[in-house]
Amino acid sequence: MARNTQVSADHNAPPITQQLAQFVANHPSRGWSDAVDHEAHRTFMNWLGCAVGAAHHEAADAALAAVNMLQPAAQASVLGRTERVDMASAALLNGITSHTFDFDDTHLKTIIHPAGPVASAVLAMAEHLGSSGREVIDALVLGIDVSCRVGNAMYPDHYDRGWHITGSTGTLGAAAACARLLKLDVQKTAMALGIAASQPIGMREQFGTMTKPFHPGAAARAGLMSALLAQQGFTASPKALEAPRGMMQTVSTKNDWNEITHELGERFEISFNSYKPFACGIVIHPSIDACAQLRAQGVTPEQVVSIELKVHSLVLELTGKKEPVDGLQAKFSVYHGCAAGLTFGYAAEEEFADDIVTREDMVALRRKVIATVDDSIDEASADVTAVLKDGRRVHVFVEHAIGSIQNPMTDALLEGKFHGLADAVLGKDKTSALIAQCWTLGEASQLRDLALLATPKRP
Amino acid sequence: MARNTQVSADHNAPPITQQLAQFVANHPSRGWSDAVDHEAHRTFMNWLGCAVGAAHHEAADAALAAVNMLQPAAQASVLGRTERVDMASAALLNGITSHTFDFDDTHLKTIIHPAGPVASAVLAMAEHLGSSGREVIDALVLGIDVSCRVGNAMYPDHYDRGWHITGSTGTLGAAAACARLLKLDVQKTAMALGIAASQPIGMREQFGTMTKPFHPGAAARAGLMSALLAQQGFTASPKALEAPRGMMQTVSTKNDWNEITHELGERFEISFNSYKPFACGIVIHPSIDACAQLRAQGVTPEQVVSIELKVHSLVLELTGKKEPVDGLQAKFSVYHGCAAGLTFGYAAEEEFADDIVTREDMVALRRKVIATVDDSIDEASADVTAVLKDGRRVHVFVEHAIGSIQNPMTDALLEGKFHGLADAVLGKDKTSALIAQCWTLGEASQLRDLALLATPKRP
Repeated sequence: MARNTQVSADHNAPPITQQLAQFVANHPSRGWSDAVDHEAHRTFMNWLGCAVGAAHHEAADAALAAVNMLQPAAQASVLGRTERVDMASAALLNGITSHTFDFDDTHLKTIIHPAGPVASAVLAMAEHLGSSGREVIDALVLGIDVSCRVGNAMYPDHYDRGWHITGSTGTLGAAAACARLLKLDVQKTAMALGIAASQPIGMREQFGTMTKPFHPGAAARAGLMSALLAQQGFTASPKALEAPRGMMQTVSTKNDWNEITHELGERFEISFNSYKPFACGIVIHPSIDACAQLRAQGVTPEQVVSIELKVHSLVLELTGKKEPVDGLQAKFSVYHGCAAGLTFGYAAEEEFADDIVTREDMVALRRKVIATVDDSIDEASADVTAVLKDGRRVHVFVEHAIGSIQNPMTDALLEGKFHGLADAVLGKDKTSALIAQCWTLGEASQLRDLALLATPKRP
Repeated sequence: MARNTQVSADHNAPPITQQLAQFVANHPSRGWSDAVDHEAHRTFMNWLGCAVGAAHHEAADAALAAVNMLQPAAQASVLGRTERVDMASAALLNGITSHTFDFDDTHLKTIIHPAGPVASAVLAMAEHLGSSGREVIDALVLGIDVSCRVGNAMYPDHYDRGWHITGSTGTLGAAAACARLLKLDVQKTAMALGIAASQPIGMREQFGTMTKPFHPGAAARAGLMSALLAQQGFTASPKALEAPRGMMQTVSTKNDWNEITHELGERFEISFNSYKPFACGIVIHPSIDACAQLRAQGVTPEQVVSIELKVHSLVLELTGKKEPVDGLQAKFSVYHGCAAGLTFGYAAEEEFADDIVTREDMVALRRKVIATVDDSIDEASADVTAVLKDGRRVHVFVEHAIGSIQNPMTDALLEGKFHGLADAVLGKDKTSALIAQCWTLGEASQLRDLALLATPKRP
């Protein structure tokens, strides 16, 4: 049994867990610019629309059926549905639905989808505790700052070795946010982060299955419970994040501690959040955008002999499914993205429906896409050339797709996206009222009205 | 943002997830030797005693208080207590208490404590479902086989890089066991394993805090929920364990697939389970045993000038706390282990009580222990020399401590250990009746009687 311990370790990490706990517990309410506060409202609204929109997806049905085996108390809303469950299960279920369509937000520097774990935990707990809208926004900003900063420190190694970074850092963000909602002191906030640090969730192999959206849901639940445990006196290592056998060094060989402490409390990572115009992984967006631009230039599917696509290798690694057989697989197919862009000019949830994915013309058009790797092209860009039957070649290069930081969705576009997701579930009027509530969330005295609007009338 | 993906991967792994699912779903009931079946009963009993014994520890109080915030349904027993909670929370709480005293079982090849995650999930679910004792024993054997085989494949790299292997493999064992209890088919059992694969739990940095015993508890809960999700149609990757970005390659650079498939269904890892005579980490046991042997040879603390201890480097890495200030810290102090061995001749939970740890003579004796690293000594052995005031040197070398595979606890010793843990919680008569139930568990038509005996009378 004897052997040497050979894994290297950094024994000189700064006290990250403590520093983050101080920040989360002590940073003043609304202690940031109006722009940051507005971005928090945009983040919340985008998350809410995604969760409501996927409320009746089969993944949501299955997860709710499993939760119901526990006979949960009716503490918090399952968004978009009439059922109510305990707050931890609500965090799980809303986290799952928020990511089910792959349509949620993205912190581009790390490919983290930050709202899923954090907002799902925050709303469920806030609803049960009777927290104010301001407390919710504060918790959201601080929680997302924690998960994204930890992500910044570990990316890309952590992601490259297989972690779905949304779930693995999301537990920390959710714990931080819930600790703030519970008004835990610095010491107990550090314990909440510590308990959460033992529960990084999610592997990239699950992409294309229901377990992918399970990751932010499970992270939300685990973070919420970590905060409740800390509140009740449960203990963890005060160096759980940074110690040699703590979370970060265990799950990543790259740990740039400075990413966590630099401008902490001055620069907020939620500022760099972006929202997807298309209902699939972010790396496909430039390709969809490019094909939509071809369509706008008059190119039609009938004219096309082939579509020559040049992208970074990561794009094909993540979304290289050439012959998707259903909507879920199509979300991991840059080929389907190109076909949808050229055919419809966009790719919302409907363009990933099973019957669209299997439609003959879509199958044929996908087969005309010839993808090649070119690592000189950024993974946020795409180079597309349509080769036409008349011999013409039409070229489009997308440096920054719509929805990127450089080319963001406007508030109006976000509202349109919200309607597209929620109208069918809640009705148009209720959805409009819910959107109005989202924009003024920071002034709301409680979350009950918002929760009522976000769920259908109970029979 | 562009960069290369540089983490290496094995693209030729055998279909482990599928093979384990077939094994778990299809292996015949009691499809093993009488010796294996008896070991399963020993494993269950040892686990149960530990959980009952720690029922009123402050970690249990804090965890139960957090769970109670969710207003859980009364589906299953919290061992050693009057409260009942939903089955997932019972799995969590019983998993925590089973490991709180660091007194549970050990699969020595991997240092996994296998029963904590698996038995905690199994009993909670079986109690609620009304399963038979045979179904429980079957699920226990198969679940432990899954977690320990995955552990065998990844150990030691996985452990060395910081994972608390009990929690990280325990989720899989609990999911396998619960899938078996639920009678899931091969396909759904693979999904249960897949969902569980995204939830490895536990970092070694947490040793010495309540989050250490949280690991098997959280693993039990996560595994149970993974099985329920799979039952309800939730999906995961069918290659979630072995794929390049699946669990095993993400959390370990060593993956010896053969450890999982070799003699699957013929050799059962529960055969290699061992039970602790001492209430602390296994690596301290040879040192305690050696000092107890010094005491048996007539050496007294008063005579001692110094105790020269030579052990493998891992012993000091894990349990090198020189000046523990309370019982929890003392469990990670080989120095306290030596002092207790020489003073009392053993080290059960009482010998790790705060007031023993801080007693003046114990502090003084600990300071006389001079530990040096000698990696030529196996980590399961210890070399101890007592240097006495009269100049004599008394030497003891322990190759295999009591409680090891080579020198196992007898059934009678296990019963004595059970009484030592449970008498104070349940009373001596009830404890004796509970022990009798444990030995005949495989023939029990249901678990209700056992659960009633394992909990105090409700007021």
